[in-house]
Amino acid sequence: MESGTNLLSQINSPADLKPLNVEQLRSLAEEIRVYLTECVSKTGGHLAPSLGVVELTLALHKVYDLPKDKLIWDVGHQAYVHKILTGRRDQLPTIRQHGGLSGFLRIDESPYDLYGAGHASTSISAAMGFAKARDFRGGKESVLALIGDGALTGGLALEGMNNAADDGTNITVILNDNEMSIAENVGALATYLSKLRMEPMYQFAESTAKGVIKGLPLGSGLITKAARAAKHTATHFATPAHTGLLFEEMGFHYIGPIDGHNVEALIDVFNHVKKMKGAVLVHVLTVKGKGIPYAEADSRTYHGLSKFSPDDGKMESKTVGVSYTSAFADTLCDLSETDDKIIGITAAMPDGTGLNKFAKLHPERYFDVGIAEQHAVTFAAGLAAENFKPVVAIYSTFLQRAYDQIVHDVALQHLPVRFFLDRGGLVGDDGGTHHGVLDLAYLRCVPNMVIAAPKDTDELRAMTRFALAYSAGPIAVRYPRGGARQLTHEDSPEIILGKAEILQDGDDIALIGLGAGVEIALDAAALLADCGVRATVVNARFCKPLDAETILDVARRCGRVITIEDGVTPGGFGSGVLELLADNGVMVPVARIGLPDEFIEHGPVPLLREIVGLTAPAVAAKAREMVGTRRESGYAAV
Amino acid sequence: MESGTNLLSQINSPADLKPLNVEQLRSLAEEIRVYLTECVSKTGGHLAPSLGVVELTLALHKVYDLPKDKLIWDVGHQAYVHKILTGRRDQLPTIRQHGGLSGFLRIDESPYDLYGAGHASTSISAAMGFAKARDFRGGKESVLALIGDGALTGGLALEGMNNAADDGTNITVILNDNEMSIAENVGALATYLSKLRMEPMYQFAESTAKGVIKGLPLGSGLITKAARAAKHTATHFATPAHTGLLFEEMGFHYIGPIDGHNVEALIDVFNHVKKMKGAVLVHVLTVKGKGIPYAEADSRTYHGLSKFSPDDGKMESKTVGVSYTSAFADTLCDLSETDDKIIGITAAMPDGTGLNKFAKLHPERYFDVGIAEQHAVTFAAGLAAENFKPVVAIYSTFLQRAYDQIVHDVALQHLPVRFFLDRGGLVGDDGGTHHGVLDLAYLRCVPNMVIAAPKDTDELRAMTRFALAYSAGPIAVRYPRGGARQLTHEDSPEIILGKAEILQDGDDIALIGLGAGVEIALDAAALLADCGVRATVVNARFCKPLDAETILDVARRCGRVITIEDGVTPGGFGSGVLELLADNGVMVPVARIGLPDEFIEHGPVPLLREIVGLTAPAVAAKAREMVGTRRESGYAAV
Repeated sequence: MESGTNLLSQINSPADLKPLNVEQLRSLAEEIRVYLTECVSKTGGHLAPSLGVVELTLALHKVYDLPKDKLIWDVGHQAYVHKILTGRRDQLPTIRQHGGLSGFLRIDESPYDLYGAGHASTSISAAMGFAKARDFRGGKESVLALIGDGALTGGLALEGMNNAADDGTNITVILNDNEMSIAENVGALATYLSKLRMEPMYQFAESTAKGVIKGLPLGSGLITKAARAAKHTATHFATPAHTGLLFEEMGFHYIGPIDGHNVEALIDVFNHVKKMKGAVLVHVLTVKGKGIPYAEADSRTYHGLSKFSPDDGKMESKTVGVSYTSAFADTLCDLSETDDKIIGITAAMPDGTGLNKFAKLHPERYFDVGIAEQHAVTFAAGLAAENFKPVVAIYSTFLQRAYDQIVHDVALQHLPVRFFLDRGGLVGDDGGTHHGVLDLAYLRCVPNMVIAAPKDTDELRAMTRFALAYSAGPIAVRYPRGGARQLTHEDSPEIILGKAEILQDGDDIALIGLGAGVEIALDAAALLADCGVRATVVNARFCKPLDAETILDVARRCGRVITIEDGVTPGGFGSGVLELLADNGVMVPVARIGLPDEFIEHGPVPLLREIVGLTAPAVAAKAREMVGTRRESGYAAV
Repeated sequence: MESGTNLLSQINSPADLKPLNVEQLRSLAEEIRVYLTECVSKTGGHLAPSLGVVELTLALHKVYDLPKDKLIWDVGHQAYVHKILTGRRDQLPTIRQHGGLSGFLRIDESPYDLYGAGHASTSISAAMGFAKARDFRGGKESVLALIGDGALTGGLALEGMNNAADDGTNITVILNDNEMSIAENVGALATYLSKLRMEPMYQFAESTAKGVIKGLPLGSGLITKAARAAKHTATHFATPAHTGLLFEEMGFHYIGPIDGHNVEALIDVFNHVKKMKGAVLVHVLTVKGKGIPYAEADSRTYHGLSKFSPDDGKMESKTVGVSYTSAFADTLCDLSETDDKIIGITAAMPDGTGLNKFAKLHPERYFDVGIAEQHAVTFAAGLAAENFKPVVAIYSTFLQRAYDQIVHDVALQHLPVRFFLDRGGLVGDDGGTHHGVLDLAYLRCVPNMVIAAPKDTDELRAMTRFALAYSAGPIAVRYPRGGARQLTHEDSPEIILGKAEILQDGDDIALIGLGAGVEIALDAAALLADCGVRATVVNARFCKPLDAETILDVARRCGRVITIEDGVTPGGFGSGVLELLADNGVMVPVARIGLPDEFIEHGPVPLLREIVGLTAPAVAAKAREMVGTRRESGYAAV
């Protein structure tokens, strides 16, 4: 993987790309791949997506004058190359490290990041905003939205497509088609794109004075796209007339397909697209993981990953024990053996949610709907209305994309859709766009919704069984990324709707934890015991409905309460406890320990928890303060 | 409008339609129009949408065996005819009346309403759930989704389209194309559909033994849709090959366009579609308001309306004074005269939000993006990133559809998008799907979000000015449907971020109202004064950030607090007050008066408020109870 040149070290901004010729750009691409892979091998991160767009990113920065021209990225996990080229090369080793570069695009990280991302499907709509702003200002710059074929199937992207071409403004959508989202792509659009891929590819053809069309098989009577494009640009490239019709019907000029690893062809096309008017869609074919054999061979594994050897791609084996993801998936698979009403649904997250296991067992009962969370939920509602048992497994942060469907289609109709929210709470290195910290609050206000959160993976198994048996309405089970210390014992009580579990008794203070908060509560109680403070520890199990009897009882008995949750405190679990106490006239001091009312940065979860005070020592300190204040003696010095 | 027949009185279920011939169905259609218009003239409701689908509904019930065959409606405001035909004829005069029929589809209203609706764009995804459920059961029935061209541009519908055809299941999408959502339709799809409308319409052609194609201009070499359809059904109808390609590319068999008021043609088409395999899209052209001259001439006005004269459509003049909608719109128009950065954006609600006024003044700065709330918000985010001042005016209930965009695109990036949420709180006759009661809770947990709510229309004017001047991040101003008693006086303090207004001083109890809750608080205070209880009345103005200083001060001073809001109590405004008090160690009794944790029925707002106890007498009663309990004498008897 030695390139023999050393161009990369000289690229400090996109301006440094401008003098490079095609040969040099090719060398640079190779250098970038090596550097990128080395960096990501040490930090973990999104590898294959960025490897796929090396030439595309180079060509865009070569042809366009960014950030004067506006390039809006979708998701942003493929923007590592863009970061390298825009003055952040030497910071790349800090990517996804606390205080370092974000693994996604951030509006406040660089002047070259005009618009942030993290979730998919946003770029076209956002770019429309930039395009209209330009029009109002009377500007002439290009506005480009770069979107993957996976992200294109999200409702927002489709709404954006519908609005973009109709407006008459100049906007270029670059479709980065690698036949993948995180997993294999699905849906009619994917099928359609695969047809387009069969078309002859655009070939670089040196521009002639006469604008002769070269390099393409020209049949008689062929009305080329070039002919239409020529009306705008007097240019020289062509695609057969019958391709891209769907996009043409949507009002776009379709250009493509183009080999996304041929930097010469890309530069040629963008040089012409730059001069075109109206809405243009450039269809670029890329290979996820391109250039690094193991990543190219298994781009699903190398989409986003932890540390690995850059030579062979071998990953460090994880020894965290059973993950929540596995506990859920295994239990679901067990249940599905004897219950053929269970249907598994995800939205492009089969591996991350564990539904891939279910998919292998029951391919006919498994639906990956692509990046289309809204459809996932309403489709599930339809199944539930017909007495099936749909299980919707979506990361907490992405379930936000289906909020109205949860409210209007599911909860309002009392339909028993089972939601399993992986990645609830702080997720760590993926940062602000991906922390699943609003779910408790945004679900708790929805009538008919049941919300459960397990204290460990064994409890998730029990809650999975409970959720599948629960049929009175919707239920959401929410759990963190990774695994957990086992806190469940043989004599742990069974899961009963709205019933908490008392783990430890003590009269000085009640520590009421939910989900990941339970372990913190137990550890805090141990710290407190060392100081002679006797804490009751409650595992709430349900955020909604709360166990009124237990919570009121421990609050009255202990006279002070701390709630602990891995979610935002406004409107969250602790807020529910406050409501319960107030509604029942129990006036005791309550401290709510959770996440503050701000977006949290990326970084390791333990560090982030440390920073926000979501730790056992912080809870213990707060408890001692509360106990000391009230007793006004004795424990005050603890 | 006399039809001279009396068929309608004999239709008690769809079975009664089966023996009717085309001539009788035409007469019945006329009767239905008269009956429908008379009923709606007395109750108010959605008139034009249902008038447009009289023949379509008749044909569907004639051909299909509902509810064994599954018909899933979108929105449901056009389902009045369906209600008439399915045993609810005599209940139609109760529509949208408390305890009467819903103005939309409800899963619990009739066995013929298989799936509820109220919001747009859900039917295809839900129908997919029904279709797969049928497949799993080994059933043979037809599954149909009826969707309007307006609703088709919503992201959920487009996600549904992308997933439907790809699956291989049998599903029929009936596109009810009336060139309208609530207002005129927009976007590339609308343009595309208008092209299809220019195509020769499907003509009824009596089936011949040989399956000859009749009634259509057949050019040489024409590969007809019929030829393709014939592979499945050996049928006899045709549309030119070049129509419907967009839908064909999406994997649908396209059939149409069809005259949606020709019941004979409709029956003929459905009889054949019934036998087709795979995903079929039937494109039906209807006229909104059809058959009732004033409704047909102005379907936008007669989309949904209050009581009117059935003869000439003249509406009762409303004398409610200035509406919130007008106060917002007029102020925005004023500001926009001197500020050309202001951009108005709505999602098919120009009239309801008042943005139609802005649109007239500044057509170039006005964007109705169609039923595409997600795009509206992310488009606004793009504009805000470029230092424009986007104003997004969307009903509270529909903003739920753009939740992730609010979080991920706007709030996370601190972008100053101004949200104006009309129809916040209980909306009345539209019922559970339309009450805007979750917004305070689902927005309050979002970091960086400012939420304001005016006590009256004058305060909305001031808040509109404030919101346009506020540029540190997103702000949502939320106000009810209709108007309000003016409570603002000349010496009312100006709007300052996070500052409340004390309207009245008293030491016994603090009544803290937000938005519509302020009037209730004032009236309750008056009732209390009559009993000798002195209440402080606070107009919170901001749900977030709360005025900590004022609220803590009045809570400490009065020793008891009641919060009053027109929203759900879990996680809502009152919950925020509880959090504030708990965080500051102020332990006083707090009662939160608002909406209960359940979906509220339709009915007049005053009645609904009465039922849930969101009234001045209820607040006063609660206050007396609290004052009595604490003082344990004196006021106890009050």
